[in-house]
Amino acid sequence: MAARVWVDYAAGSAGEWAITRVAAVRGAGLAAAPRLATRVRALDAPAAAPAGEVWCLGGVASHRRYTHEVEDLALVAASPPLDRPACRHACLIPMSKSEAWWDLAQDRRRAVFEETSQHIAVGLRYLPAIARRLVHGREVGGAFDFLTWFEFAPADEPAFDALLAGMRATPEWDYVSREVEIRLTRA
Amino acid sequence: MAARVWVDYAAGSAGEWAITRVAAVRGAGLAAAPRLATRVRALDAPAAAPAGEVWCLGGVASHRRYTHEVEDLALVAASPPLDRPACRHACLIPMSKSEAWWDLAQDRRRAVFEETSQHIAVGLRYLPAIARRLVHGREVGGAFDFLTWFEFAPADEPAFDALLAGMRATPEWDYVSREVEIRLTRA
Repeated sequence: MAARVWVDYAAGSAGEWAITRVAAVRGAGLAAAPRLATRVRALDAPAAAPAGEVWCLGGVASHRRYTHEVEDLALVAASPPLDRPACRHACLIPMSKSEAWWDLAQDRRRAVFEETSQHIAVGLRYLPAIARRLVHGREVGGAFDFLTWFEFAPADEPAFDALLAGMRATPEWDYVSREVEIRLTRA
Repeated sequence: MAARVWVDYAAGSAGEWAITRVAAVRGAGLAAAPRLATRVRALDAPAAAPAGEVWCLGGVASHRRYTHEVEDLALVAASPPLDRPACRHACLIPMSKSEAWWDLAQDRRRAVFEETSQHIAVGLRYLPAIARRLVHGREVGGAFDFLTWFEFAPADEPAFDALLAGMRATPEWDYVSREVEIRLTRA
């Protein structure tokens, strides 16, 4: 569960995903590109040499920071794997939170995240339809604090849109300082 | 408070601290060396080229992961800066925790850390005598999950020894998989 891997999302001319839209939700956006490649490697493995990517965002998959044990158990039980054949649509959300967020103590961040915004409870409603992987960029000098990758069947795109809209309406999103939304389909 | 910097502790022939002892507390130790240099840089600044160090351990200073707001306020009020002239002794503790620790949910880790082991409450008793800086290596591919640096006046070394002995006797330490203790004096 706590296995750590490095994940790079590289936008350019190569990759298994076709980028259909890049939207700046808050703050600066990202350049458009035709394709996106996902590269996963061990934390201590050398990074791939840049190969003319338009941009490359990376981060570390690691342990969960806010979930209580009962929530962890529910998430583990309900969370599907990535790469299910039916999941031909995807979305990548690079996001950063404000210094005001990071200055909050752990109990205050947890209170905004779950007791107020119900991030975990709402997310659970969309499982197992929407597969998800979160990586952290904040401690590794990344351009974004978080990169969240979602995969779903085309028929579940309206549900995914509703999930996004719901999340963005929560008090937690008052602390989002930058957010980009990248939609993709399997190439 | 949440300012992020990269900190390297480099053991070799150079540096402002003389290493007086390197002890393996749990698991493999580290090689002896005469001196230790501390290098602090911005997260996105390039790393210094290796200069014949015997070992170099790095990590990221970042936000606190377990403290509640009232504890944060107490810590901020009581915590002294590093580099006080009277603090001529120091100790570096590189440490990793087991996978069993990282597999625990946030509430379970918090419960072991504070409700059971009183890590914060006990640490507060030694402030402002003992200055402290924690950096995280787990998400950056470091050899240790944490590097904790302590500075204190020579007269406070017995108090520091008591702090260490007290911490190592807590249930939290059941989850420590590797720990090294490096004692130093200003060169």
